[in-house]
Amino acid sequence: MEDVMSGDPAKSVSKRSEGRRKRARNSSKPSFLDSQLPFQNVVNPMAPLEPLTSDHIEAVHHKSLEIIQRLGVKVLSDSARAHLRSCGCQVDEANHIVFMDPEWVMAMVKKAPSRFTLLPRNPDHTLEIGGAVMNFGLVSGPPNVHDAINGRRAGTLADFKTLIKLGQSFNAVHFMGNQAVATTDLPVNTRHLDSLLATLTLSDKVSASMSIGAGRVRDAVQMMAISRGVKPEDLKSSPALLTNININSPRVLDQEMSDAAMTLAEYGQDTIITPFTLMGAMTPVTFAAALAQQNAEALFTIALVQSKFPGAPVVYGGFTSNVDMRSGAPAFGTPENSRANMAGGQLARYYNLPYRTSACNASNAVDGQAAYETQMALWGAVTGHGNLIYHAAGWLEGGLVASFEKLIMDIEMIQMMISLMQTPRFDEDEFGLDAMEDVGVGGHFFGTEHTLSRSKTAFYEPMLSDWQNYENWQLAGGLTATERATAHWQEVVENFEAPPLDPAINDELEDYVAKRKAAIGDGEP
Amino acid sequence: MEDVMSGDPAKSVSKRSEGRRKRARNSSKPSFLDSQLPFQNVVNPMAPLEPLTSDHIEAVHHKSLEIIQRLGVKVLSDSARAHLRSCGCQVDEANHIVFMDPEWVMAMVKKAPSRFTLLPRNPDHTLEIGGAVMNFGLVSGPPNVHDAINGRRAGTLADFKTLIKLGQSFNAVHFMGNQAVATTDLPVNTRHLDSLLATLTLSDKVSASMSIGAGRVRDAVQMMAISRGVKPEDLKSSPALLTNININSPRVLDQEMSDAAMTLAEYGQDTIITPFTLMGAMTPVTFAAALAQQNAEALFTIALVQSKFPGAPVVYGGFTSNVDMRSGAPAFGTPENSRANMAGGQLARYYNLPYRTSACNASNAVDGQAAYETQMALWGAVTGHGNLIYHAAGWLEGGLVASFEKLIMDIEMIQMMISLMQTPRFDEDEFGLDAMEDVGVGGHFFGTEHTLSRSKTAFYEPMLSDWQNYENWQLAGGLTATERATAHWQEVVENFEAPPLDPAINDELEDYVAKRKAAIGDGEP
Repeated sequence: MEDVMSGDPAKSVSKRSEGRRKRARNSSKPSFLDSQLPFQNVVNPMAPLEPLTSDHIEAVHHKSLEIIQRLGVKVLSDSARAHLRSCGCQVDEANHIVFMDPEWVMAMVKKAPSRFTLLPRNPDHTLEIGGAVMNFGLVSGPPNVHDAINGRRAGTLADFKTLIKLGQSFNAVHFMGNQAVATTDLPVNTRHLDSLLATLTLSDKVSASMSIGAGRVRDAVQMMAISRGVKPEDLKSSPALLTNININSPRVLDQEMSDAAMTLAEYGQDTIITPFTLMGAMTPVTFAAALAQQNAEALFTIALVQSKFPGAPVVYGGFTSNVDMRSGAPAFGTPENSRANMAGGQLARYYNLPYRTSACNASNAVDGQAAYETQMALWGAVTGHGNLIYHAAGWLEGGLVASFEKLIMDIEMIQMMISLMQTPRFDEDEFGLDAMEDVGVGGHFFGTEHTLSRSKTAFYEPMLSDWQNYENWQLAGGLTATERATAHWQEVVENFEAPPLDPAINDELEDYVAKRKAAIGDGEP
Repeated sequence: MEDVMSGDPAKSVSKRSEGRRKRARNSSKPSFLDSQLPFQNVVNPMAPLEPLTSDHIEAVHHKSLEIIQRLGVKVLSDSARAHLRSCGCQVDEANHIVFMDPEWVMAMVKKAPSRFTLLPRNPDHTLEIGGAVMNFGLVSGPPNVHDAINGRRAGTLADFKTLIKLGQSFNAVHFMGNQAVATTDLPVNTRHLDSLLATLTLSDKVSASMSIGAGRVRDAVQMMAISRGVKPEDLKSSPALLTNININSPRVLDQEMSDAAMTLAEYGQDTIITPFTLMGAMTPVTFAAALAQQNAEALFTIALVQSKFPGAPVVYGGFTSNVDMRSGAPAFGTPENSRANMAGGQLARYYNLPYRTSACNASNAVDGQAAYETQMALWGAVTGHGNLIYHAAGWLEGGLVASFEKLIMDIEMIQMMISLMQTPRFDEDEFGLDAMEDVGVGGHFFGTEHTLSRSKTAFYEPMLSDWQNYENWQLAGGLTATERATAHWQEVVENFEAPPLDPAINDELEDYVAKRKAAIGDGEP
């Protein structure tokens, strides 16, 4: 016999819930949103996967300290170099290279907290950062956007708002990244104000500041404080913002990056230090070298932040993947990327720091490749105990596109992962031996009280996956998952209702933006 | 800054290998097969993921023994019941129910080997079964076949041969399952002979016997012996065949199944004991109950086999997934299925038995759903330390269809998993500090000797994934992964060369089939 279910009609009862259909008719909300998982603190109950032995970890640790001490990192900010010189670091001023003593680095890294909390304007959306808690983030960074209705195009504020609405509507999204898509229709020097206004009015979840220079960060701090109804200095003891700070690998810390990081840390907000280490391009082609360089660049920058603002929340970021050796193009969701996501978690735990990783792919279409590459990266991130999993919803084309259909597919994948993390119960009643006795040999369990009393909650109910038989699926149009996703994001956007916000706060945010735009004019923020 | 690679042309060199293109022109083999991974013994170097605590395992163990002792299993074979009665088991003859004593069950289960070897006619394709070794199998069981050229249809011998050719050509496939697709164009009572002839002439990998009754199994043993150039009794000390034996859950052991299992065990061949436990249909809806019932049915049948043929190779099989509670349709690649794949491994290890699991999905199309559901199941299987991962290449539609395009996508996914299992090196030269020093800050590593000397082997090179930029991908037709897969399977089939086989053995196999067909006539095999 083979593992294929018989067509026995007794085993194939139809009991699509009448209540469900009624809800769909009477409510303005898309019906599939009714059954989404609640917003929740997701804790991975299983031990992490560890591709590196403790000897490997020690070797990477020592090599990365050697890189920091002997090769150094180029720091473009004059003030950052001056600060590090005052801390006793050796500085090659002709080339702007800073060298750090390994013991000093470790003393600084030890000042960082291993766990902290981020409180957005809705306390129900508070995030724990650390331990085995997993938080999934909206895509951030792409210059372009794509959907099946309007095609591929440069991102605008309208697209940005659509992404924030989707991120707010789906409980599986815990936080918004630095910039869901570039708002290329707006002036570069003030677009961060429009994005922040949209984010803080359309969403009440943890969100990010853009991380280019100090001015944009100060605006983010001010506006987040307004949205919470507190003063900026109150955020110090109760951080709300996160920001991703990339190192320009190999070993360059750009001034905009260090300025942003230092300003965030000054206000007690979370900086995520993420070297941009694509193996074969920005690091040597080997895994050992990439990890050592990632670790060196992360520790160096964390030490900088902690030396000036000890105890400021920081996150160890890993973004190690490989390039296509034939074209030089970045690749994601590869075996190397999946392994790096796990190994990065090992390194972060070695330093007792929270860990940021990603769930990316390099596909040009929302197809099987997009799904399996994302899964490879996502499983690496989840089994690597990533605390912040960036780009988990909507990333496509190696990050050049934010895709609405991919976002819907990603929500399904994240929800499945959240369900997998639930610990099943093993108490007496769960074993159902009475039901087994009642049903007897060769029967079925569809109609038993044991089944019926649990039928609504027994299994994860998918949003996008279609489990109809082939004939019914064909009758319903024979749509692929990607084709079905188009209706889903449209429904969510059409029925979107912004989370409640005190009109006075809304006005204050708008006033702040208007005032700042006038002040900035054609200059720099 | 965001995690998106700059368009810096210095970081995007093109160096598509000239040698590669030459090979593609001069060889009759599809060029993408040149770069496939070698056939290999894949060992998972990481600890398994364990969703169950040791208390949970103990609870499942004791509940399953209670099921065997108190509720019993219906055994339809008179001879099997008679044998079990002679072993001291209690038998309810009116209802054909057999009850086993827990201590006796455990004593029998302990007789099974924890590890064994399967030797097909090509010794290079020998499989290790046990420990952390992973073997990936071709789809088996579907009545239908699908490809983009000829559509969805009932399977024929021609389709069966296509699937065997694909399974033979891809090194990622370790073994052929019971029946890649039903050969519905052939008479039911002799089609196993045609399938076996095709399998043993087109492939030299480990393959399976059909498991319906003793006659078909004897034919498989005879023909496998012929293909190896040995006598059937020689296979006892050197098994070559595997067979999946499903329990007709809940708790029915069909006569054809026990007859097949006992005949295989008599010849020392591997039986895989797999309860068919879809939660909510064949078991109670709860995870605890499904695991207890799976475990009860598996242990019961393993005890039966071991009591008659102690030491015969057996594998603990798990096939626990859930049904769609709205329609009763089976679902695969769900969070519950992924967790069951891991938990089954914990139970198999508890009994020191090799473990069979699966990588299935319930999608109707070779789309994102097919990919993400397969990945969920595959990761459960791999992190659960599955030794035999059934249906890993070509399964679609909950097992109602063997898909040629899905098979190509699956090969890519398996190869990525095999690559992930490789342990990276951390010796001095791998760290590449000299290369880092040479390149300096802000440079790139494309042209360094450290990179160039490793460029061919540094990363997994995909077969199906397309990493071109969007513009080039569009120029090449803008094909999805599924659309690209069509050309791939066609190329492999068109260029297929059967593995070498002594013409005398080929004749002997054909003679055996002709003789047996004449003997069977319109009767039962």
